[in-house]
Amino acid sequence: MASTTGETLAAAEPIADGRTEEGEEEQVVNPWEVSAKGGKIDYDKLVDKFGCQRLDESLIQRFERITGRRAHVFLRRGLFFAHRDLSDILDAYERGEKFYLYTGRGPSSESLHLGHLVPFMFTKYLQDVFKVPLVIQLTDDEKCMWKGLSVEESERLARENAKDIIACGFDVERTFIFANFSYMSPPIYKNIVRIANCVTGNKIVGIFGLTLEDYGGKFFFPYIQAAPSFPSSFPHIFSGKYSKLRCLIPCAIDQDPYFRMTRDVAPRLSYHKPALIESKFFPALQGESGKMSASDPNSAIYVTDSLKDIKNKVNRYAFSGGQDTIEKQRKYGANLEVDVPVKYLNFFLDDDAELLSIKEKYGSGAMLTGEVKARLIEVLSEIVERHKRARAAVTEETVDAFMAVRPLPRMFG
Amino acid sequence: MASTTGETLAAAEPIADGRTEEGEEEQVVNPWEVSAKGGKIDYDKLVDKFGCQRLDESLIQRFERITGRRAHVFLRRGLFFAHRDLSDILDAYERGEKFYLYTGRGPSSESLHLGHLVPFMFTKYLQDVFKVPLVIQLTDDEKCMWKGLSVEESERLARENAKDIIACGFDVERTFIFANFSYMSPPIYKNIVRIANCVTGNKIVGIFGLTLEDYGGKFFFPYIQAAPSFPSSFPHIFSGKYSKLRCLIPCAIDQDPYFRMTRDVAPRLSYHKPALIESKFFPALQGESGKMSASDPNSAIYVTDSLKDIKNKVNRYAFSGGQDTIEKQRKYGANLEVDVPVKYLNFFLDDDAELLSIKEKYGSGAMLTGEVKARLIEVLSEIVERHKRARAAVTEETVDAFMAVRPLPRMFG
Repeated sequence: MASTTGETLAAAEPIADGRTEEGEEEQVVNPWEVSAKGGKIDYDKLVDKFGCQRLDESLIQRFERITGRRAHVFLRRGLFFAHRDLSDILDAYERGEKFYLYTGRGPSSESLHLGHLVPFMFTKYLQDVFKVPLVIQLTDDEKCMWKGLSVEESERLARENAKDIIACGFDVERTFIFANFSYMSPPIYKNIVRIANCVTGNKIVGIFGLTLEDYGGKFFFPYIQAAPSFPSSFPHIFSGKYSKLRCLIPCAIDQDPYFRMTRDVAPRLSYHKPALIESKFFPALQGESGKMSASDPNSAIYVTDSLKDIKNKVNRYAFSGGQDTIEKQRKYGANLEVDVPVKYLNFFLDDDAELLSIKEKYGSGAMLTGEVKARLIEVLSEIVERHKRARAAVTEETVDAFMAVRPLPRMFG
Repeated sequence: MASTTGETLAAAEPIADGRTEEGEEEQVVNPWEVSAKGGKIDYDKLVDKFGCQRLDESLIQRFERITGRRAHVFLRRGLFFAHRDLSDILDAYERGEKFYLYTGRGPSSESLHLGHLVPFMFTKYLQDVFKVPLVIQLTDDEKCMWKGLSVEESERLARENAKDIIACGFDVERTFIFANFSYMSPPIYKNIVRIANCVTGNKIVGIFGLTLEDYGGKFFFPYIQAAPSFPSSFPHIFSGKYSKLRCLIPCAIDQDPYFRMTRDVAPRLSYHKPALIESKFFPALQGESGKMSASDPNSAIYVTDSLKDIKNKVNRYAFSGGQDTIEKQRKYGANLEVDVPVKYLNFFLDDDAELLSIKEKYGSGAMLTGEVKARLIEVLSEIVERHKRARAAVTEETVDAFMAVRPLPRMFG
């Protein structure tokens, strides 16, 4: 996977996802570029353009009813907001049929920020709820193709990132983590070729906004990200009665083009179309029009940040919707629509009652920005500290265990 | 590898190898198409266009001097007629440096004709002369991409073709045969990505005459054929001091575009440019402007042909340069330039004195077409019978032995 949640909100380029009509407001979302005029993505437009479905309240209620579990905060507060065929997955689950989860990450940087963890925290929740196997693709090859990293450096980063992913709490008995360079093998390669044989050059160029100036790897990477959507890419896990298993992919919506392509191809190869559950981009500290990027450490909270860093970043950089002075704040209250601390609490403060109370008080002026930020600092510090402890416990042997090519005998257990 | 020697002399299409100037005589030679106006390839033009070198008499003499061996009939009679850096290979060999051989085949048909065997017969000779290791790539994936064969059918054909290749007499202690689908693995995949990262989409489209209407596999196959030119694609054979070994590729000249690309890339990856020794296309029985193809069994001698088939094909279909009547033949003699039996004897009758005698007598009218054809039938029958015996001795275990991923401890022994 290329950028994940909130990696890039970069400068506009003309080609996005095929046809951009003259005069249309420019909004570019593909796996390598997320940009919009004014900086704020119009997700409604995106859903319409991509042709995916909104994840509405009734589907969330159905999810809760069928699974008997409270919807994850990312789900009930709209971070995961769109889907493709999620209801089919729920139907199948209700009928007692199995499926597997597939997600991934492009290991472009050593230290991850909270936005990078979003798909993994959510996937871990799904794995717990459904008790299903999960495959996680680390696209070290992609980073070699796009970022000019050497093969060796890409492989090293993939392994480092695997540690952060494992720290999210995945169950080693249900989870196979693989990096493309080291996993490349006949079963997945055969699927890559089968998929490639169904997609024309025009389609690849159109879907992914490539030009013939691009280097060769970019023209075949999409098939490599597509292939894990088909269970036969993992014969050590999915053989026999599981060889046609359904697949559900949690990811940020910038990854949708890969799986639109995959879904087109799936029936021709006698597979289910992979289902998707898709998130918005996680906002930068500077707000939704800001850029959350590895090149600006003050744009995000990193999982390696110290408590002092977190405090400093939130207090100094988190864009406030509060008023300039205490007096004005008491009188007018904060603009919650643009307030970043509230946005962050919205995704990380699980307690609905407390969140509601903060929003009411802050919006009415009873609470000050500093108080809201102080609560956010507590919440984020707890998450980061918990992650650090979990990551410190991940040894090289743990990584080897998750990445071993092996059956998962208790994957549905 | 796509077509091999003489597979196709098909209908003209506009794009060949990049720029075709308006008004220039059309001659298309790329791995998937070999065609020329009037049907006869102008090899001089091709050498100039591709920028390879002619394999002249002095280089052949140097080859004989250095190796202490008579040049193979394919070499001294001009079937292998062009090269790239062959003299560098000879220089290195003279200095006591090692190299390895790489050739291949696209397993598109079950039964091979003599043209298909040409590169293997010649490669076997080179292996014997130089005592060097050899890797043989069976591009089953390519046949899946171009011919619409299923993965399984392509793999089956690759294995069948391996038997015919082994029957050419390769030394199992020096030879690794691999099919792309079953060999795909991290070492070769890493080289594929490294190569792809050096070649733009424009270049691939230009070199191989692709359009964006083509399916995705075609855009990445060239890297897969390129990768075995680098020894690190085979760490089980070439590790340590052999990890930067030189490579010599015997092939038909239609494969030159792959290796032109590979040679461009090699220095950027700190490898030697692979050297090449390149053949003309083997003529069809109907003559050089005819099409030798699997779809017309009477266009070629197949290694599965019975002695009766051979006799019948040569007598009925081998284009004769002799005169219409015995009287005219006695008076004017045969036109050796267009005579197919003489062309075939030129490549398969090792005895220089006998060949010269036949040419003199046939050209002067002292010999009749029937007599020349009778001698050709003898020569071809012997080759085909020898091949059949050798192939019958190739068991599934023999194939497994050649295709096992293993070191070749006596590869230079």
